[in-house]
Amino acid sequence: VQWAQDIVEKINWLAQFGKDSENGGVTRLVYSETWLEAQLALKKLFEDEGFHTEFDEVGNLFARLNGTEYTNETILTGSHIDTVKNGGYYDGQLGVIAGFFALKHLQQTYGQPVRNIEVVSMAEEEGSRFPYSMWGSKYIAGQAKQEDIKGIKDANGESFEEAMNKAGFGYKKNRENVRDDLKAFIELHIEQGNVLETEEIPIGIVQHIVGQRRFIVEVTGQANHAGTTPMGYRRDAMNAAARMIYGVNDLALSYGDPLVATVGEIQAQPGTVNVVSGKVIFSIDARHINEKELQDFTDEMTANLRTTASHIGVEIDIDMWMDEPPVPMDPAVVDIIKQQCDNQQLLYKLMHSGAGHDAQVFAQNIPTAMLFVPSRDGISHNPQEYTKPKDLVEGIKALTGAIYDLGYT
Amino acid sequence: VQWAQDIVEKINWLAQFGKDSENGGVTRLVYSETWLEAQLALKKLFEDEGFHTEFDEVGNLFARLNGTEYTNETILTGSHIDTVKNGGYYDGQLGVIAGFFALKHLQQTYGQPVRNIEVVSMAEEEGSRFPYSMWGSKYIAGQAKQEDIKGIKDANGESFEEAMNKAGFGYKKNRENVRDDLKAFIELHIEQGNVLETEEIPIGIVQHIVGQRRFIVEVTGQANHAGTTPMGYRRDAMNAAARMIYGVNDLALSYGDPLVATVGEIQAQPGTVNVVSGKVIFSIDARHINEKELQDFTDEMTANLRTTASHIGVEIDIDMWMDEPPVPMDPAVVDIIKQQCDNQQLLYKLMHSGAGHDAQVFAQNIPTAMLFVPSRDGISHNPQEYTKPKDLVEGIKALTGAIYDLGYT
Ligand SMILES: NC(=O)NCCC(=O)O
Ligand SMILES: NC(=O)NCCC(=O)O
Repeated sequence: VQWAQDIVEKINWLAQFGKDSENGGVTRLVYSETWLEAQLALKKLFEDEGFHTEFDEVGNLFARLNGTEYTNETILTGSHIDTVKNGGYYDGQLGVIAGFFALKHLQQTYGQPVRNIEVVSMAEEEGSRFPYSMWGSKYIAGQAKQEDIKGIKDANGESFEEAMNKAGFGYKKNRENVRDDLKAFIELHIEQGNVLETEEIPIGIVQHIVGQRRFIVEVTGQANHAGTTPMGYRRDAMNAAARMIYGVNDLALSYGDPLVATVGEIQAQPGTVNVVSGKVIFSIDARHINEKELQDFTDEMTANLRTTASHIGVEIDIDMWMDEPPVPMDPAVVDIIKQQCDNQQLLYKLMHSGAGHDAQVFAQNIPTAMLFVPSRDGISHNPQEYTKPKDLVEGIKALTGAIYDLGYT
Repeated sequence: VQWAQDIVEKINWLAQFGKDSENGGVTRLVYSETWLEAQLALKKLFEDEGFHTEFDEVGNLFARLNGTEYTNETILTGSHIDTVKNGGYYDGQLGVIAGFFALKHLQQTYGQPVRNIEVVSMAEEEGSRFPYSMWGSKYIAGQAKQEDIKGIKDANGESFEEAMNKAGFGYKKNRENVRDDLKAFIELHIEQGNVLETEEIPIGIVQHIVGQRRFIVEVTGQANHAGTTPMGYRRDAMNAAARMIYGVNDLALSYGDPLVATVGEIQAQPGTVNVVSGKVIFSIDARHINEKELQDFTDEMTANLRTTASHIGVEIDIDMWMDEPPVPMDPAVVDIIKQQCDNQQLLYKLMHSGAGHDAQVFAQNIPTAMLFVPSRDGISHNPQEYTKPKDLVEGIKALTGAIYDLGYT
């Protein structure tokens, strides 16, 4: 179809704002110059198609097609425009481009909807510039307070508010509630995993976004000379940590999908080839779509870690510093998407999102759903992000159908 | 005894050369100003007792009591005067101080020996300044060649030869053979482990110095998003490394003493809490007193690592970058020390050295033995190094007895 070429063109066009000329990665941190250029370029893109646009106080950009009948009811789609450092062309951005094609196609084909339809290009999701993430969606959903970002600074010492003001935004008072006209939110995003690619399915319909618990585990043994300390005289934090790490992995496997648990960070002290480790610190990231299962897993995991520690004779300190609950998508909106895929003969898989997304913020206040398209090799947050044009088209068709159903009927 | 106080006094006196006024650690890198001050102070210490002293071309300091009968036969004791960065008062230095007390006591008690007796304060053993270790003993034993240190620089870019020349040393030609008058070498050193302390034994008589093999293991899996990659779809280098590390530990335990194997360094890539590791790199240090046993262990270990890698589906690269063979001490000299301990009713344990020492260099050319005294908590290479005065006395008594036997009879 002609769509495929147009979509790829627009994705490449948007990627130019913040693109590294050497490695092709995109860096578009919230409120930066390239970020502002991208938002203003999108504003013009939508306006050139005749859509009304508007920024809110924090820099979320909305493009709108007015409804004829239920004028205080709005169907929202979109995603975030910011990227990680040296990210790809798809994460976030695709959801905005998808919204553009959906809105344009619906208007051209069916004219005005009965409900308002809006596409949002959200200011921030990644938490890449400031230690605060999902700022755009939290603001829209009335979940962000001014005091949340007070004192938060970027790596150069610039504060969140300074940066926002410099970009031409800034707000007078807290938004304390979600906009009450919002009747549904649908986000299209790349999967960032390899399930769809491996199973050769172009569309994932998300039913749940996982809950996440993150831990720092500090194992303390005794540092000793590697040559002069017999095996039986050691309290080796590295050996203990190794048993713990594979134990976490085995326990996760025994729980089965969709439980995942990952040790991604590790540090040994003193970290010297001929010294038995006195301390090893590692991270655990555990996720599940069901809070009770996640709780059961982390309870059992924590107990196992303590057992291993006492068995080997090391001390252990386990700090859970993140506990985000799982979020279900709205069954009615999910059904509408399924129906649309069936109608259009689009192959889909019901699945969960293992990654956090803006949709989990909206889902707490309004009926929300999410669509995935495949990520080549499961890669994201990397210049190598890629989704086949054919899969982009199918994802956008499913999104467009669902918005039609919600906005026109 | 009066000795205890004198010994502690001399140890504290020597520690002042390079002592950090804040944490009390000693830093005395080869050919540095504090190193030269220490060697010159020792020279004076020996001369004040009437001993003849001499530096060799590379800065090893010898103090000598001439023999009356076998004038071309010399019994040597001593150790190294250099330290690690922020080291303790004992590692190396104790062996020089012990030699001083032995020589002084023997001269005062028995007058001139039949063979020459020498104490050496060796220039360098630790490899802390330049990436080359045991320079002092290798030079004496004719195992160091000029080309070995060509191009070697310290962290400030100063070359080995420049540093040596600045300190007033430098040599014209290679020493290609060990001095042919050397009939025995005995080194007294702290154990650097916790065996003697745990078993409450003041003296260790070393029978073997272990062989060492060191490896870098690089495990390559696939980096993936920790949330979106199901457990069954992962090639997690961290999980694989964890299994390998505890496997190395278990295999070492199954071999039993004196086999030791240690993983002291580890690094994960990308090393991010919510990313499955694409690569993990870790070190292995394996030691045994018997070459065949060490070979068997590392063969089995290597095979196990490869099995684990293929089982989990990751790639593995194993690089053995060090292979130092085990070195036996001379049975006749060991017997002399045992005899002396029995005669003086000194409690000892026959043991091996798990750490590398100058004695392993000498042992290749002349009859060599080693004595250990306990290290509190097994600590070394640290300002906390400590040995009880009572244990120092017993160790020096054993050394003195053995030198008497070798030099006076
Ligand atoms: N979508 C996404 O990559 N979120 C980052 C947070 C996480 O899920 O690890
Ligand atoms: N004596 C000593 O600590 N040698 C350092 C080399 C080693 O054995 O690890």
